[in-house]
Amino acid sequence: MTPFTSKRTDSVAAQGELKLIAGIKRWLGSSSPSSPFGIGDDCAVIPPTKNHQLVTTDPVIFGRHFDAQVPARAVGAKLLKRNLSDIAAMGGKPVAAVISLALAPETSITWLQEFYLGLAHCARRYRVKIVGGDITEGPTGFVGAFLTLHGESTGTRVVTRSGARVGDRIYVTGSLGGSLRRHHHDFTPRLAEGAWLARRREVCAMMDVSDGLAKDLDAITPRGLAPAISAAAIPISRDAQEIARETKTDALHHALCDGEDYELLIVIRAGANSNSFETAWQKRFPKLKLTHLGHFVSKNRVPKDCLHLANFHGYEHLS
Amino acid sequence: MTPFTSKRTDSVAAQGELKLIAGIKRWLGSSSPSSPFGIGDDCAVIPPTKNHQLVTTDPVIFGRHFDAQVPARAVGAKLLKRNLSDIAAMGGKPVAAVISLALAPETSITWLQEFYLGLAHCARRYRVKIVGGDITEGPTGFVGAFLTLHGESTGTRVVTRSGARVGDRIYVTGSLGGSLRRHHHDFTPRLAEGAWLARRREVCAMMDVSDGLAKDLDAITPRGLAPAISAAAIPISRDAQEIARETKTDALHHALCDGEDYELLIVIRAGANSNSFETAWQKRFPKLKLTHLGHFVSKNRVPKDCLHLANFHGYEHLS
Repeated sequence: MTPFTSKRTDSVAAQGELKLIAGIKRWLGSSSPSSPFGIGDDCAVIPPTKNHQLVTTDPVIFGRHFDAQVPARAVGAKLLKRNLSDIAAMGGKPVAAVISLALAPETSITWLQEFYLGLAHCARRYRVKIVGGDITEGPTGFVGAFLTLHGESTGTRVVTRSGARVGDRIYVTGSLGGSLRRHHHDFTPRLAEGAWLARRREVCAMMDVSDGLAKDLDAITPRGLAPAISAAAIPISRDAQEIARETKTDALHHALCDGEDYELLIVIRAGANSNSFETAWQKRFPKLKLTHLGHFVSKNRVPKDCLHLANFHGYEHLS
Repeated sequence: MTPFTSKRTDSVAAQGELKLIAGIKRWLGSSSPSSPFGIGDDCAVIPPTKNHQLVTTDPVIFGRHFDAQVPARAVGAKLLKRNLSDIAAMGGKPVAAVISLALAPETSITWLQEFYLGLAHCARRYRVKIVGGDITEGPTGFVGAFLTLHGESTGTRVVTRSGARVGDRIYVTGSLGGSLRRHHHDFTPRLAEGAWLARRREVCAMMDVSDGLAKDLDAITPRGLAPAISAAAIPISRDAQEIARETKTDALHHALCDGEDYELLIVIRAGANSNSFETAWQKRFPKLKLTHLGHFVSKNRVPKDCLHLANFHGYEHLS
């Protein structure tokens, strides 16, 4: 669905700010609490918390994170889910979000309504309150929605990217690559999995795979170490395999570089009982595959038959 | 300073994401704590708090909130100060911020560095930590920075916009209008004043004046009431007077409609001792004028010689 209209009466510019905000509150429905906890005051108010607070921010921009082919409801849901995936990656639970919109004057009200209905549906599903935001006019052709999500830890700790050591085992959830076909907006943030993993003591590092495994593995690898992973271990998605077949490209390359997988990359301690970890996972999440990719070694001790990740480039945000 | 460059080597596109993030951390210096409390993990982590949390979000966009005339350092400071003004308006103190950037590929590194140095300087002054963010490529000609600021209440309560009743007195800090000349980026968010006001029991409603007094008064006026304010009471800024003289326009209109004043609009209880309130203010803030504008009356009882605010329009964000 195109976010723009040539009919001035259906444009955001024709409505003006106050009517738009009233519309947004209506579209958000029960996911928008009343002021001061929600939209309508200088700040949104969130009750005190005894847990560590988590904050993350990710946008969706027309032409970059979505196009006219993606239904507006899916765009709204994607905006929230991108951020939920970051909360999941630290083992947290989401609490509240604010959205800053920059909209071309010709942005269609119909598109915006669908966008908010998709966002609201997703917010209810994951128990997130949309508590505030801002709307500003953007240049012609521009639609951007910048969401900041607040969450908190579900237990006594948050799991960070750092903490891996030599010998620690590397896992990934789900399968990778080919997200452009559908997965980039049709995915499930791994919140339940992230919270469960944060309670497992053998888990020592975690992040979400959003820029492609090749690049993201780099971010979780401590200085002086390298991941020893064989190509055969990579769980390639069906979409990546299909795209590779149709476009005569390399499926492995898609799995390592496409980005927008929104799976969890997990590191567990070398000394832990990996069998009992894998068994516990299968019992708790029987429908979601967990793949053992390999382990960390010293940088100069990567076996020859392992993947050379430097040959693969993940998604570069500015290039 | 223009945010764009024609020299590719000085563009953000030439640097790429990882180098840019390293640069941003360096430019932020001590205002950027180390991961997981700052930049570098899936989420930023903020320690638990016993106070109510406050969240607000406001952007700066090229061509809208700044242009090539405004120094890049002032743009960075303005971005933070716009949000600080919202925290001030609820009597809170700022804690941490995240920034989502959408940058044209031809955005200049030099501009971005100056922007961050200005932001960092302002963050240190107001004790705000910059804890995370996102950088995404935007379309040619676009530079937008979307900041979300987290704060907390300074006492047991947050002051909201609602709470005014018939007879309650209306005050405003500073002077109004003409902000385009300089004030829109060269202003002081009223944090100390807001926190002091939140501790005064006679203060029953508060907000910041950012869209012009005419529009913002509307937002603090309960249904069925109206402000009874005489034109003579409005504190017109020197800039508004000068602009009015030079452009043969109405100085009062500038004071009521220009927007970006970033002053505090305050309501105190009808029964309170207004003399002692005003005296206490003058003692605490001798350099900042506090003006009594008028009081609230029933909607159909506005005296004839009072301002008809419907004749004045504040800043409309989408029109």
